[in-house]
Amino acid sequence: MEVVQVLHMNGGMGDTSYASNSLVQQKVISMTKPIAEEAISNLYCSSSPSSLAIADLGCSSGPNTFFVVSELIEVVDKLCRNLGRQSPEYQVFLNDLPGNDFNSIFKSLPSYLKKMSQQLGPGSGPCFFSGVPGSFYGRLFPTKSLHFVHSSYGLQWLSQVPEALESNKGNIYMASTSPPGVLRAYYGQFQKDFSMFLKCRAEELVTGGRMVLTFLGRSSEDPSSKECCYIWELLALALNDMVSEGLIEEEKIHSFNIPQYTPSPSEVKSEVVKEGSFSTDRLEVSEVNWNAYDSGFSSSDAFSDGGYNVAKCMRAVAEPLLISHFGDAIIEEVFRRYKEILSDRLSKEKTQFINVTISLTKRG
Amino acid sequence: MEVVQVLHMNGGMGDTSYASNSLVQQKVISMTKPIAEEAISNLYCSSSPSSLAIADLGCSSGPNTFFVVSELIEVVDKLCRNLGRQSPEYQVFLNDLPGNDFNSIFKSLPSYLKKMSQQLGPGSGPCFFSGVPGSFYGRLFPTKSLHFVHSSYGLQWLSQVPEALESNKGNIYMASTSPPGVLRAYYGQFQKDFSMFLKCRAEELVTGGRMVLTFLGRSSEDPSSKECCYIWELLALALNDMVSEGLIEEEKIHSFNIPQYTPSPSEVKSEVVKEGSFSTDRLEVSEVNWNAYDSGFSSSDAFSDGGYNVAKCMRAVAEPLLISHFGDAIIEEVFRRYKEILSDRLSKEKTQFINVTISLTKRG
Repeated sequence: MEVVQVLHMNGGMGDTSYASNSLVQQKVISMTKPIAEEAISNLYCSSSPSSLAIADLGCSSGPNTFFVVSELIEVVDKLCRNLGRQSPEYQVFLNDLPGNDFNSIFKSLPSYLKKMSQQLGPGSGPCFFSGVPGSFYGRLFPTKSLHFVHSSYGLQWLSQVPEALESNKGNIYMASTSPPGVLRAYYGQFQKDFSMFLKCRAEELVTGGRMVLTFLGRSSEDPSSKECCYIWELLALALNDMVSEGLIEEEKIHSFNIPQYTPSPSEVKSEVVKEGSFSTDRLEVSEVNWNAYDSGFSSSDAFSDGGYNVAKCMRAVAEPLLISHFGDAIIEEVFRRYKEILSDRLSKEKTQFINVTISLTKRG
Repeated sequence: MEVVQVLHMNGGMGDTSYASNSLVQQKVISMTKPIAEEAISNLYCSSSPSSLAIADLGCSSGPNTFFVVSELIEVVDKLCRNLGRQSPEYQVFLNDLPGNDFNSIFKSLPSYLKKMSQQLGPGSGPCFFSGVPGSFYGRLFPTKSLHFVHSSYGLQWLSQVPEALESNKGNIYMASTSPPGVLRAYYGQFQKDFSMFLKCRAEELVTGGRMVLTFLGRSSEDPSSKECCYIWELLALALNDMVSEGLIEEEKIHSFNIPQYTPSPSEVKSEVVKEGSFSTDRLEVSEVNWNAYDSGFSSSDAFSDGGYNVAKCMRAVAEPLLISHFGDAIIEEVFRRYKEILSDRLSKEKTQFINVTISLTKRG
């Protein structure tokens, strides 16, 4: 599987699209907003460029795409008004893999720009948007051309499925039953990918440039910890049920592994230190419910809907990967079963994603 | 009709797509290539930026999208080798209206980049591509951020249908039967749009930056000259036939006007002089057959195919405009009739598009 070609969130605006099923990701952006705001405020106060280049890496398509950037621009524009300075020109680069639905983003851009210019009011700087297709595990921008890089829930995706994973039978991700070699291969791939990411961004950012990255991660040091692996184990359960009923070939599931690694804060920090181009300003962990619509243990009704919500969210994210490997005939049935399994678990336990956020400054 | 929302070449890679029916446009790019090469060579020799920012405005989607940029990069890379200099980094901005099929461009980018890097060989500069959705009759890029602007067969499109055209009955474009007020309104819209284009690009280009623009135009000073209006008159013929058979409401055709203006060289030059930010290095006129597959008067067989080719080319360009106004039910029939009319005319006369190319340098 060529991850660069296959991986993308479900496009369009329909029922199974990422645009319609990305509330968890939006909550995470909201939660980590103070960190991004602090970083871009510090950046602007210390350098005040007349043109401010911001990149959002792994922007996906849907309401979240503009959500991040709007926040950042609002912060700077407010700062300028308070300081009595003229707003800079904003150059915004929206990056994702080439399979991302950029057409949907671009079609909604004119109305978004109109709304935003009204919101910011007169005197706000002009905004120039562009879409940048490509993997952030390679160079995307000219040398020293960026001031601020943001990425939320993108960097847990690996550039490829780790090699030599034949022995991860019955699992589709790291799991408590995965042999140590599988866990090592996953971690090795993460180290390779994230250090490459840091190296590329170090070349693209100006000295003093800032970067705020949020990973889907874990708080524990155990890479097969339930907090990060359970969501995929339940999907594996649905797939294995279908194997036992002869609906999916056993061989097919053995060769399927999710190209993802959910790092701990210390694993993230360790790569930053090793690579050496960035100093760490903040490193934080937060939590968000699997079911974004659930703000607590309210009623059993909410939980049965929860399975539906979480299954749809995961479908918007993982469907292209599954289709590329298993074909599209099984998709409805996989997610029907996954929804049932999720509903059952959500009614019995509190389930959360762990977010690891790191705020960095490019050294001189 | 909101031109910014409606106008785009047919997307995708299918039979009626622009990607499959844009050989005329490719020929034009080839014909005007020496002018673009000269301009970018002069630019590079006089300034040698370490990062070279190139924008192609109205890039569309299909083979032509990369064709232009490849040529420009090859020229600079060859220059560098000859001069013993290191290649610059190339930052390429592909612009078109938000309805353009950027997804198709982006999906073919990885294989294009691989091919190009092989072609250029080791030591060639890295290329960073981005897509910029928006009208070139407004600002698209930060101040003084571009070195080179290219646009081919985009600038004849107006930002809107000229106002007050109620009297252009039976025509869909300027025609010999159009009242003088219609011709004036079209020319006025062209002047307004092109001067705005020049003003915006003057802000975006560095001093000494270059611009090569090719219009679908005319050589005569008569705006309703057959050389530019005939192709649309024949489409109007097909539409009027369908009106007389009751297949299209008469009212519908009265309110339909193509948002295009095909200027003469002196009209182009005159706006450049009036705006004042650019000096003119070259102003040239060239011709290309309507039927790109036809390189002369060969056989009658070639001409009957000609109608088919030209109708498909025009369909790839004009279908979204027609659908937006007439709905999609009539489309097949319109282009069936248009093809027949074209086949008949092509067998009787030599029909050519006129290209007006201007090469400009940004004044200090």
